[in-house]
Amino acid sequence: MATIVDVEIDPVALIAALGRHARAAAVELARLPTADKQCGLTAMAAAIRTAEADILAANAIDMTNAAAAGLSSAMLDRLQLTPGRIAAMADGVATVATLKDPVGETIDETVPANGIRLSRVRVPIGVIGIIYESRPNVTADAAALCVGSGNAAILRGGSEAVESNRAIHTALVAGLKEAGLPVDAVQLVPTTDRAAVGAMLAGEGIIDMVVPRGGKGLVARVQAEARVPVLAHLDGINHVFVHASADPAMAERIVVNAKMRRTGVCGAMETLLIDRAYPRAADLIAALAAAGCEVRGDEAARSIDPTIASTKDADWDTEYLEAIASVAMIDGLDGALAHIARHGSHHTDAIVAEDTATAERFLGEVDSAIVLWNASTQFADGGEFGLGAEIGIATGRLHARGPVALEGLTTYKWVGRGSGQVRA
Amino acid sequence: MATIVDVEIDPVALIAALGRHARAAAVELARLPTADKQCGLTAMAAAIRTAEADILAANAIDMTNAAAAGLSSAMLDRLQLTPGRIAAMADGVATVATLKDPVGETIDETVPANGIRLSRVRVPIGVIGIIYESRPNVTADAAALCVGSGNAAILRGGSEAVESNRAIHTALVAGLKEAGLPVDAVQLVPTTDRAAVGAMLAGEGIIDMVVPRGGKGLVARVQAEARVPVLAHLDGINHVFVHASADPAMAERIVVNAKMRRTGVCGAMETLLIDRAYPRAADLIAALAAAGCEVRGDEAARSIDPTIASTKDADWDTEYLEAIASVAMIDGLDGALAHIARHGSHHTDAIVAEDTATAERFLGEVDSAIVLWNASTQFADGGEFGLGAEIGIATGRLHARGPVALEGLTTYKWVGRGSGQVRA
Repeated sequence: MATIVDVEIDPVALIAALGRHARAAAVELARLPTADKQCGLTAMAAAIRTAEADILAANAIDMTNAAAAGLSSAMLDRLQLTPGRIAAMADGVATVATLKDPVGETIDETVPANGIRLSRVRVPIGVIGIIYESRPNVTADAAALCVGSGNAAILRGGSEAVESNRAIHTALVAGLKEAGLPVDAVQLVPTTDRAAVGAMLAGEGIIDMVVPRGGKGLVARVQAEARVPVLAHLDGINHVFVHASADPAMAERIVVNAKMRRTGVCGAMETLLIDRAYPRAADLIAALAAAGCEVRGDEAARSIDPTIASTKDADWDTEYLEAIASVAMIDGLDGALAHIARHGSHHTDAIVAEDTATAERFLGEVDSAIVLWNASTQFADGGEFGLGAEIGIATGRLHARGPVALEGLTTYKWVGRGSGQVRA
Repeated sequence: MATIVDVEIDPVALIAALGRHARAAAVELARLPTADKQCGLTAMAAAIRTAEADILAANAIDMTNAAAAGLSSAMLDRLQLTPGRIAAMADGVATVATLKDPVGETIDETVPANGIRLSRVRVPIGVIGIIYESRPNVTADAAALCVGSGNAAILRGGSEAVESNRAIHTALVAGLKEAGLPVDAVQLVPTTDRAAVGAMLAGEGIIDMVVPRGGKGLVARVQAEARVPVLAHLDGINHVFVHASADPAMAERIVVNAKMRRTGVCGAMETLLIDRAYPRAADLIAALAAAGCEVRGDEAARSIDPTIASTKDADWDTEYLEAIASVAMIDGLDGALAHIARHGSHHTDAIVAEDTATAERFLGEVDSAIVLWNASTQFADGGEFGLGAEIGIATGRLHARGPVALEGLTTYKWVGRGSGQVRA
């Protein structure tokens, strides 16, 4: 029994109305000192804890509906909330309150010949739209990162999680209210009408940036339709290149971890590139297989280990997100660079090597948001990068790249302080 | 007699082909040390000087065609090249060689708990498309800024300047070749077919960013059609707010300069906001009029100076780019903030005030790319900001704001150096 009623409402008018409220809230938020935003985040976290029973009850309705609709067990797991998950959600919001506030930071300062003292000062972007799928924790995570960076959020969650999202949103608003922050800082789109997503994506001047959080279908739709800027990644076709100079024990450890620690995350390795001059290729392949990975290889890899399956052309461009890896034997660094340039998705690529010059060339020339030397690709994560949280990982080229947290949700303005200068 | 023949060529295939060449050049450029790029720029500047006669001859053809086509004298002036203008163009290219190279710069560095040494390192964006109108100097300016920041440029100039652009492009390529840089670093779209512009704007994955340089019609078309990110400003509806505490002599100097120094530039003031509590409003209006400006005012302004014309609603949203200014009498800072929030274009706004608290609130709360205190809005310019040049001024919120030069043509990547770390 879904309790949200889709009344007849023009989605364009709806998003415009939410946008006006969001803009007014964003103007207020942009002026707030750090302490007030921290206060708001702390109150939001506390309100989630207080609302635990309401959130669990709402989630139970979503779970019943989802089970009746025949959702997969993986989707049900993503949807399910428990007291532990609610506590983790509240902790996540509270954590954002402890992060360094980028707003107001002076990026640089100069006094050019005209004598005007010029600074670039970080300011919030304004209104951020978040479009996401079944995980209800995104409601709290995204709201916290937006409020923490002085932005207003317009949240559009998945229809399966409608009750859970509403309960979490109610708690967040209670927290905002208690802390004296504008309640429109966090708004939830009150309809599951897909046309509302279209209106958000077309909302130039209403929404300053959209962040899609979810599967490839969602991200692809957002990237294809959006007229507003999008911060996202579509694929994580990540490579580990094991160079001839690699330490074999380290190579094995990194390759198995990069693929198998969690196979469903965007930082997982999909393709293993082995230097033909690396002497222990068979051990690497065997280690992956022993860890439970289905290994597919090109002809050269299969000549080393004939038990593995044969790759098809499509394998090199596939993000498995499963316990499957494709293996190519490669002619040294140049072969690896060429393979990654052709098949990579500009997400995360790693080299295992003891030779510094080779590693530095790899780091310099691989054109990805994250390039790693002697470390697992699974580290591609805002928390691991010391950002404390992340709104997502971006593989576009502009604005922010890789894990994006508070700083990526800001822009800057030029502030000039003069003494009466006029231009000649 | 135009000598470019528009052969039947699919503009999408054409842009894709130019894009492939540009991408290959961009990969090479991204690796170049600063000295090589400087060498290339110096050779490009020298080649322009060497080609002076060829460029003048080509320009003469454009001028003849333009005169025959009945272009306005303003457009003819923009199109015309002289030995002096060619020398200035070459000097501009040479100047870029002296600017600080942002590529390779470490933005920040951290060692999070996992022990991986993480840096954010500036890298070129990749392939930049420049779409511009009649000024042929943009061919050289834009090419220099792209090469200087390690990017490949695809240039699409105006059809009036086709011969001039071709001659300048030939010189630039000669310079690139002489310096051993990839000649495809700077390509000129070899057709005046407007569909080629559409193909550039739709060129996701081919062109990483488009910069339109020209009038509002061009920028509006680019912003409306583009699927690739655009760096630009549409309007410069800039305000000067004269606060009650302003020094009258300074206010008069700044207001007259902001409007009248050059009326056709995007940094020109269009609207003057005068605090009702400012005692010398009549002098300000009189000073503008004495400088040759047509002054239009709201009722309150006309009650101060009944000789001025009456504003219509549309005046507050109009970028005159002429010797016309509209004047509103405003209730203090809050009135000014509200007026600018409603009618501003997020370009450049200034306050004249002696009161520091008022000025700092204005600087903090006006949501524009450039906010100035006690200085003329005419300073909105990359050269004046110490950037040495500019590819344009951006009023969007993401990536780069205000005057954009080399740094705005870069992005960053995360580089992690580990010692065998795997994620738990």
